[in-house]
Amino acid sequence: MVIIGTGNVARNLFDAFRTSVDVNVMQVMGRKKQALSYFNTTKTTSDPKNIAAADIYIIAINDDVLSTVDELFDVKDKFLVHCSGAMPVTILPAKARRGSLYPLQTFTAGRKISLREVPFCLEAEYQDDLYLLTSLASSISDHVRHVTYHQRQALHLAAVFSNNFTNHLYSVAREICVEQNVPFELLHPLIKETAAKINQMTPEQAQTGPARRGDRKTQAMQLNLLKNKEYRKLYRFFTKGISGAYRAKNEIAEKS
Amino acid sequence: MVIIGTGNVARNLFDAFRTSVDVNVMQVMGRKKQALSYFNTTKTTSDPKNIAAADIYIIAINDDVLSTVDELFDVKDKFLVHCSGAMPVTILPAKARRGSLYPLQTFTAGRKISLREVPFCLEAEYQDDLYLLTSLASSISDHVRHVTYHQRQALHLAAVFSNNFTNHLYSVAREICVEQNVPFELLHPLIKETAAKINQMTPEQAQTGPARRGDRKTQAMQLNLLKNKEYRKLYRFFTKGISGAYRAKNEIAEKS
Repeated sequence: MVIIGTGNVARNLFDAFRTSVDVNVMQVMGRKKQALSYFNTTKTTSDPKNIAAADIYIIAINDDVLSTVDELFDVKDKFLVHCSGAMPVTILPAKARRGSLYPLQTFTAGRKISLREVPFCLEAEYQDDLYLLTSLASSISDHVRHVTYHQRQALHLAAVFSNNFTNHLYSVAREICVEQNVPFELLHPLIKETAAKINQMTPEQAQTGPARRGDRKTQAMQLNLLKNKEYRKLYRFFTKGISGAYRAKNEIAEKS
Repeated sequence: MVIIGTGNVARNLFDAFRTSVDVNVMQVMGRKKQALSYFNTTKTTSDPKNIAAADIYIIAINDDVLSTVDELFDVKDKFLVHCSGAMPVTILPAKARRGSLYPLQTFTAGRKISLREVPFCLEAEYQDDLYLLTSLASSISDHVRHVTYHQRQALHLAAVFSNNFTNHLYSVAREICVEQNVPFELLHPLIKETAAKINQMTPEQAQTGPARRGDRKTQAMQLNLLKNKEYRKLYRFFTKGISGAYRAKNEIAEKS
């Protein structure tokens, strides 16, 4: 197997495959010579001409350059697998055998993720390739599944809401704390518990707070505290969304 | 010490204080007789006339009835402490000595929280009462601090963003999954990692995804997938917010 790309996804996959006895990472190819040093326990190259022959090529590069991967090397009949949540396998050059290996996780520089628990969503144009890809992914994760493109798109979109947008809410929360000179760290246990709760109940069941309770007095006070117009909009939007979703259940009073 | 109220906050405080050697929960008072059975390891009453004399009364009832607590019993010169994040201590009757004990956590029926790690934010009108309250709270939490009302308000508002609103995003994510027949549980590791990341870096540093990358193609595709008009608004709003916040740093390409 060859990995093309040197970013956070490439690094996390590399680290997991490296310790797997069933998989041999033959080579990592990346344009940035400096980034290749991370992979110096295997062969590396920055010259596409030197890309090795392999049963699978994992293409861990940005979505917008996936379609140009055949400018790098002769991909004819090669099994290419991208790692994108958003793009169809058909974004890859048509003369290749195409597939997708989507690890449903957020990869950030400086954080090592244990991939064992990470769901890997797989797709391939040909049944034999799907077998091969399944055995590859199963060597590093216990949660491998085949998905359709529509399902992968839904998962990616759901990931954007529950990861990217959630993280932005943390940013706003941090700003509010900094303004009043209280450490954002005080919110860490709450944030951890919010995430942990959904293992035990649905988000609908877990919902608490002034919007859920229909507590208009607190809502008015909080809107008044928000100096940033955009944050006020956000506050109104969520309050409306939550009240709408839970209007029927508003007799249940819970504190958050 | 006497607890007035029988909801999730009262229960979690009761369970913590009960196992503390320094504090004696003399009585729990609640209007709902059925709810009192939870507290049957101490004295309980549903009749306000029987409220015992105590050094501290913890008033764990809904915000909108805090001001009427003197209709329950003679509060003159009694030390009353509410648990509200939003309300000033002056919402309590003026003839009492007033304070606030705000546990910065979300309490949901059916989930037991370990309070040791939970920040307790304290306020009291009188210095001696603040000492007493501090020693009380310190017996169940390692993170006790004195805050001003402005600071408590800011923390409560930040909690609404990072807990209530975040949880609503989980709801939206779940809906998207259910629609395409993929289990929401696949997102659990991602949600857990999103929350865990902020222990190591600021939310700004942790931000990833199509909005952060300025990936307009994926943004357009995802908007197209969203059938619910309100969710499209939410998507646009967050994308705008994140792009605005990170516009200067968009050369950094990360995958999520």
